[in-house]
Amino acid sequence: MIKVSIIGSGNVAQHLIAAFAENDTIALVEVCARNPESVSGLIPKSKIVARPQDLGVADLYIIAVSDSAIAEVSRQLEFSDRLVVHTSGSVAMEAADPKNRRGVFYPLQTFTKGKPVLFREIPLCLEAENPDDFKLLEQVGKTISDHIYAISSAQRKALHVAAVFVSNFTNHMYHIGEQICDANGIPFDILKPLITETADKVMTLSPAKAQTGPAQRRDANTIAAHLEFLQDENLKKIYQTLTQSITDGQKL
Amino acid sequence: MIKVSIIGSGNVAQHLIAAFAENDTIALVEVCARNPESVSGLIPKSKIVARPQDLGVADLYIIAVSDSAIAEVSRQLEFSDRLVVHTSGSVAMEAADPKNRRGVFYPLQTFTKGKPVLFREIPLCLEAENPDDFKLLEQVGKTISDHIYAISSAQRKALHVAAVFVSNFTNHMYHIGEQICDANGIPFDILKPLITETADKVMTLSPAKAQTGPAQRRDANTIAAHLEFLQDENLKKIYQTLTQSITDGQKL
Repeated sequence: MIKVSIIGSGNVAQHLIAAFAENDTIALVEVCARNPESVSGLIPKSKIVARPQDLGVADLYIIAVSDSAIAEVSRQLEFSDRLVVHTSGSVAMEAADPKNRRGVFYPLQTFTKGKPVLFREIPLCLEAENPDDFKLLEQVGKTISDHIYAISSAQRKALHVAAVFVSNFTNHMYHIGEQICDANGIPFDILKPLITETADKVMTLSPAKAQTGPAQRRDANTIAAHLEFLQDENLKKIYQTLTQSITDGQKL
Repeated sequence: MIKVSIIGSGNVAQHLIAAFAENDTIALVEVCARNPESVSGLIPKSKIVARPQDLGVADLYIIAVSDSAIAEVSRQLEFSDRLVVHTSGSVAMEAADPKNRRGVFYPLQTFTKGKPVLFREIPLCLEAENPDDFKLLEQVGKTISDHIYAISSAQRKALHVAAVFVSNFTNHMYHIGEQICDANGIPFDILKPLITETADKVMTLSPAKAQTGPAQRRDANTIAAHLEFLQDENLKKIYQTLTQSITDGQKL
């Protein structure tokens, strides 16, 4: 059994604890939770410690705390030369205290409290300072996910920016759609099949080839009518910026 | 049986023909196709006519041609006082020739050639000049879709703009994500579960509540790092515009 301890009690920590809980290869030794209530249903109370200083021996420590707290938490650990990884998409591996062997165990997904996710479907982006540690991360990762990737810190940075576009900015597009519906007495439900199909399309078709709409077909009349419809300056600006980008055939 | 004829041979026309083909309530009388090849597999050749002028009697004529051709095609019809509808999201009902009774039969979905869609899941937005015609459209619509909505021309205009945001602009976000992956040696596959989950979230949660990410949590450090990463001026502008809009808590 590989001994794993988790530091954190937020969304990612909770999903990891749940994923490791029923696992033949992994022994979830301890969870360090500043807020023990939030993990008390997932793990026996005897395994919860309050401070990083209180953690016992494990083969792997996973720091699943907010980005800004990773460096500090890694310093608070009172042991050295053990494998300590964080779960952040945007923090460099080197941000952790070098007294331990460092790595990254980044699940690329948007976690919502209370909404279950199929962890086996989530891509895990792994990185480690040395090859043996990478092998261990890979071994641990495979017990909970079918999608394991070796991703360097530089690639992870790019990936995090890409994730902001395909997830955060996409959700903002949904939000604007919802607002336009609300303002015109249209149920947002009417847009849901379109949202699903738009996402489903790019599972098999490159987004470059899936692009449709007035900007793609350079339909100046429709674009002008839409801009006239959008009274709000901010929405006008977004519409214009994205239309221009599609029309230009955006290249990096 | 309600007699329906379809004018057009593009994506929407093809999907409508397929949806009506096996239908106990609808008799698909004729299809008027400028390009007969594209519908020859869907309907017997004897039912295909080349010109709107050649169409025989039906209870409902559905004009499924490009937006710019709707008015002209409606003028070419040589009969009057019959029910003639178009399938466009952005053309007013009144754009058709007033010699016939007018209406709209707008399936709100993004159609891709060769990719089957479950027509029963597609919202149909209906409008008609008079109540009896609306009832007929409703009756016809229900034979192919479970989601029938009465949508006025003004609402349809708003809906079409909303659809551009949640579908065309969203696909552009996917495209940018793909380009960032390509430029950094990352397989685009790694983003797919995130794309699926982001769409899936808003099936049950309002997009306003589903918003996450650096802009939402006003994480200035991450935003600055992302802007530094994005060398391309166009991508920088998109990132800034959308981040600002999320931060402002966009209101119409």
